[in-house]
Amino acid sequence: MSEGGLQCPLPLRQYPNVLLAHGGGGQLSRDLLHHLFLPQFENPLLAPLHDGAVVEIEGRSLAFSTDSYVVSPLFFPGGDIGRLAVNGTVNDLAMCGAKPLYLSCGFILEEGLKMEDLQRVILSCGEAAKEAEVLLVTGDTKVVEKGKGDSLFLNTSGIGLVERPLLPKMVKPGDAIIVSGTIGDHGIAIMSVREGLEFESEMKSDTASLYPLVAKLLDSCQQLHCLRDPTRGGIASALNEIAGAAGVGMVLEETAIPVRPEVQGACEILGLDPLYVANEGKLVAFVAKEESDKALEALRSHPLGKDAAVIGEVATGQEARSCPTGTVVMHTAVGGERIVEMMSGEQLPRIC
Amino acid sequence: MSEGGLQCPLPLRQYPNVLLAHGGGGQLSRDLLHHLFLPQFENPLLAPLHDGAVVEIEGRSLAFSTDSYVVSPLFFPGGDIGRLAVNGTVNDLAMCGAKPLYLSCGFILEEGLKMEDLQRVILSCGEAAKEAEVLLVTGDTKVVEKGKGDSLFLNTSGIGLVERPLLPKMVKPGDAIIVSGTIGDHGIAIMSVREGLEFESEMKSDTASLYPLVAKLLDSCQQLHCLRDPTRGGIASALNEIAGAAGVGMVLEETAIPVRPEVQGACEILGLDPLYVANEGKLVAFVAKEESDKALEALRSHPLGKDAAVIGEVATGQEARSCPTGTVVMHTAVGGERIVEMMSGEQLPRIC
Repeated sequence: MSEGGLQCPLPLRQYPNVLLAHGGGGQLSRDLLHHLFLPQFENPLLAPLHDGAVVEIEGRSLAFSTDSYVVSPLFFPGGDIGRLAVNGTVNDLAMCGAKPLYLSCGFILEEGLKMEDLQRVILSCGEAAKEAEVLLVTGDTKVVEKGKGDSLFLNTSGIGLVERPLLPKMVKPGDAIIVSGTIGDHGIAIMSVREGLEFESEMKSDTASLYPLVAKLLDSCQQLHCLRDPTRGGIASALNEIAGAAGVGMVLEETAIPVRPEVQGACEILGLDPLYVANEGKLVAFVAKEESDKALEALRSHPLGKDAAVIGEVATGQEARSCPTGTVVMHTAVGGERIVEMMSGEQLPRIC
Repeated sequence: MSEGGLQCPLPLRQYPNVLLAHGGGGQLSRDLLHHLFLPQFENPLLAPLHDGAVVEIEGRSLAFSTDSYVVSPLFFPGGDIGRLAVNGTVNDLAMCGAKPLYLSCGFILEEGLKMEDLQRVILSCGEAAKEAEVLLVTGDTKVVEKGKGDSLFLNTSGIGLVERPLLPKMVKPGDAIIVSGTIGDHGIAIMSVREGLEFESEMKSDTASLYPLVAKLLDSCQQLHCLRDPTRGGIASALNEIAGAAGVGMVLEETAIPVRPEVQGACEILGLDPLYVANEGKLVAFVAKEESDKALEALRSHPLGKDAAVIGEVATGQEARSCPTGTVVMHTAVGGERIVEMMSGEQLPRIC
């Protein structure tokens, strides 16, 4: 792309227009990143392709991350776009092994938005920032004409101080794969509002700052290798990305993956696979096998990590035949084996 | 607002819904900031209310800034949304006295956007980043349904290393007010495309990285006090903001303000005042009077600053009677005097 510039590279050529799925966090998002953004922005800091970048300024390692939020509806059980935007960027920083410090927020408002709704979102940003112990230090507001936006979009960017570098390429064969709690809660909370589903117990988004869990893991484990918060595209997409970046295979045990029964039930009704449903308050950790008990103990010592579980491991030499580099294989509950692929289309548009 | 939370404070109560003017950079933007955002986000780093925040991390002063871009059309003479977004955040960092280093970019795409247009914007971001010597290190892409956005919105956030702190409150009575070149070029370039106006010479946006000018000023002037790039709301709004923040009055000489004849002409046709029209490659500098020649020389030594001019001064004791704290007064071309107010409504929606 650096030569000629406007020649659309494969495999984007088959898509002359942007589809919803290009923002879904799955294969099409990945294609956009690899074939459109990276060729143009190429630089060594982008190469690790993590939740945020790690930059060096005068000998200090800082994490820097950005995310735009377009979730619909703005308000949902367990949170709203403001809380989501603050926690989301805080978590991206934490996943880089950084203590989140400072956040920006950029609002794009649609003309006609109720001032009261804006105020609720701002209030919520402020509360979430206090809870996450970060400062909102700079911001911007733009307004677009009615019909040219959708009530409110919100970008947050953030800076954190790296405590210990954690990267996908540090993941090693034999590492335990740990999830900090039940999966799919955020996505199902959003879907239940959108679809008007009613359940016996209310489905709540799990949006939360994960830094307290990260701090505990950094304290307890010398061989913590990588962290990822499995948002859009769920744990299936997150694990596939890391498997690809680290050049390893992964083996999951379906029965070990914590899923709330009501989320499992909702997934069945909606025809969704919880492995692909978004989370906003869960992390996946890769830790050397010998430290997996320590890691579980550290996570479980905090309310956010009480359901933490080892859900699989990075394939070692012996398993490599059935689980080649870059793939994620799952031993299913019924004793079979299936490949867990990266999400290919758009499962849940505007989930974050 | 910290108590009760959802009680809408004056003077926002008269606006139950967001208007375009709330994003225009004038009085309503200011009201939103002071009455909705600041009460919730209050912290000492936000207090100076500059183009970006200055944060301390382990003894280093960093500038941190964010801006969302919703300019329409995406492509215009002299630039496009990508170039604008990169230069805009680079300039906000430079106005803090910082060398811009790292940028993030967050795209919000509307379903159906031509892939070719996205590619042109990305290419343009990459080129502008190279020219401004900053690295685009992290990004994010979201897609919204057709009709819920407007082709492409783009947020950039950035980090810079502060070389010397520059703040509105450092502005002193007697300071020379210098503008680095002709005003209104960006706004008129956008309006001429929107309105289908044709001029003998093409109106071009002035979008550019201003850091080279800032570096020259920092090198040449020991008593450089404050910098501001007068974007939305034009130099009128920028000067009013600084007059308010610094607690000073300002006196401008209309005949000294550089305006291209074709911009002046277009303003007359469109019924606009160039003082309120957006710039994207100009800065206003406040320098001690005795250094104003040095500052002009420094600016004029660079092509971007060739039309630099002293356009007025910060009111001293003697002038304070006709020019009270917080006001900007202009000696007009016809020998009169008028108060230059902050922009009150929305002059040019979606200019950046």
